[in-house]
Amino acid sequence: MLTLYASQGSVAVAAHLALEEADLPYTIHWVSIDKGEQRSCKFLAINPKGRLPTLQTEHGHLTETPAIFDYIFDILGKFLPSDPFQKARAREILSFLATTMHVNHAHRPRAARWSDDPAAQASMAAKVAETMADSCSVIEAVLPDAGWFLGSYCISDIHLHTVSRWLTGDGVDIANYPKLAAHFAAIKARPAVAKVATLHG
Amino acid sequence: MLTLYASQGSVAVAAHLALEEADLPYTIHWVSIDKGEQRSCKFLAINPKGRLPTLQTEHGHLTETPAIFDYIFDILGKFLPSDPFQKARAREILSFLATTMHVNHAHRPRAARWSDDPAAQASMAAKVAETMADSCSVIEAVLPDAGWFLGSYCISDIHLHTVSRWLTGDGVDIANYPKLAAHFAAIKARPAVAKVATLHG
Repeated sequence: MLTLYASQGSVAVAAHLALEEADLPYTIHWVSIDKGEQRSCKFLAINPKGRLPTLQTEHGHLTETPAIFDYIFDILGKFLPSDPFQKARAREILSFLATTMHVNHAHRPRAARWSDDPAAQASMAAKVAETMADSCSVIEAVLPDAGWFLGSYCISDIHLHTVSRWLTGDGVDIANYPKLAAHFAAIKARPAVAKVATLHG
Repeated sequence: MLTLYASQGSVAVAAHLALEEADLPYTIHWVSIDKGEQRSCKFLAINPKGRLPTLQTEHGHLTETPAIFDYIFDILGKFLPSDPFQKARAREILSFLATTMHVNHAHRPRAARWSDDPAAQASMAAKVAETMADSCSVIEAVLPDAGWFLGSYCISDIHLHTVSRWLTGDGVDIANYPKLAAHFAAIKARPAVAKVATLHG
């Protein structure tokens, strides 16, 4: 049995969606970031980095969303293209979302990671709407006019949805990006996405 | 024939190392960040994100280090564990290096990505030694006492070396992390790594 340690509304939504889409048996163990539970001795014994998500497997714990995607979908042989170049394209989009777009977003709620100065933290937060809009433009340029990123539904679509959920809070109007807005609407209609949304708000 | 668009000393070292270790035929096209060539119309036509590395393949251009690793090593069937959990572990380490440690480093040379205020940028740069030291502690805790990350040489080792090259400039003494220092010394002895080092300084 897989157990996902997750915080509500965080990037853990991606791993939660992956488990739900995979239709594998799993349980959720909620960890409250508001209460600082990710810094408790109990959780640090599971993931010394103090970050969510963390997936408990029969082989040990696994952290980092791209690795959790890989583990779940490698077992299943689905939601990743089989052609080597298309598979690399799926990872290219995933990497942009994880290393650039998620990082841009994090400068609003997590600016203290990179500066101890409240004025600098406020300055970072003030730029998030601009950097997230830039990231949306990158995505808009590579999304197809309709349908999923690479034709068939895959890890890139799941992670794009996770990151797109933050846009309103970051001060970006998704309506400015018609292809991204259509992707967001289409994925919300999937039963797995709708179920996870009710649990994460 | 593969062509790698790379800037000297940047994270493009990782993709360059991957090509060299793979022993595939390739050419290097140097792009100078100091001269702003990554923002030229010619390069933006290749990679609209204006970032290095970019790999030109027979199927099209590919960006993002994890995707380039995947494309090169998926073709070859090497430098990635075959066991699903171990393969996910390799991606877990790679993801930490790309989304946390590389991002921590970037707050020194690239702080302007996240704030327009010079004082805030200086504040971010001043914290990089601390955040990189924290990242080194995470790595030191998961590295084995000797040898490569997961037993056999893989993508995690290649990317760790790329990121470790920045530590001195970031104000971190690698000698404080004995297992990391031993890894750095061991990987430098590989012919592919020595060759790439002469080209990147």
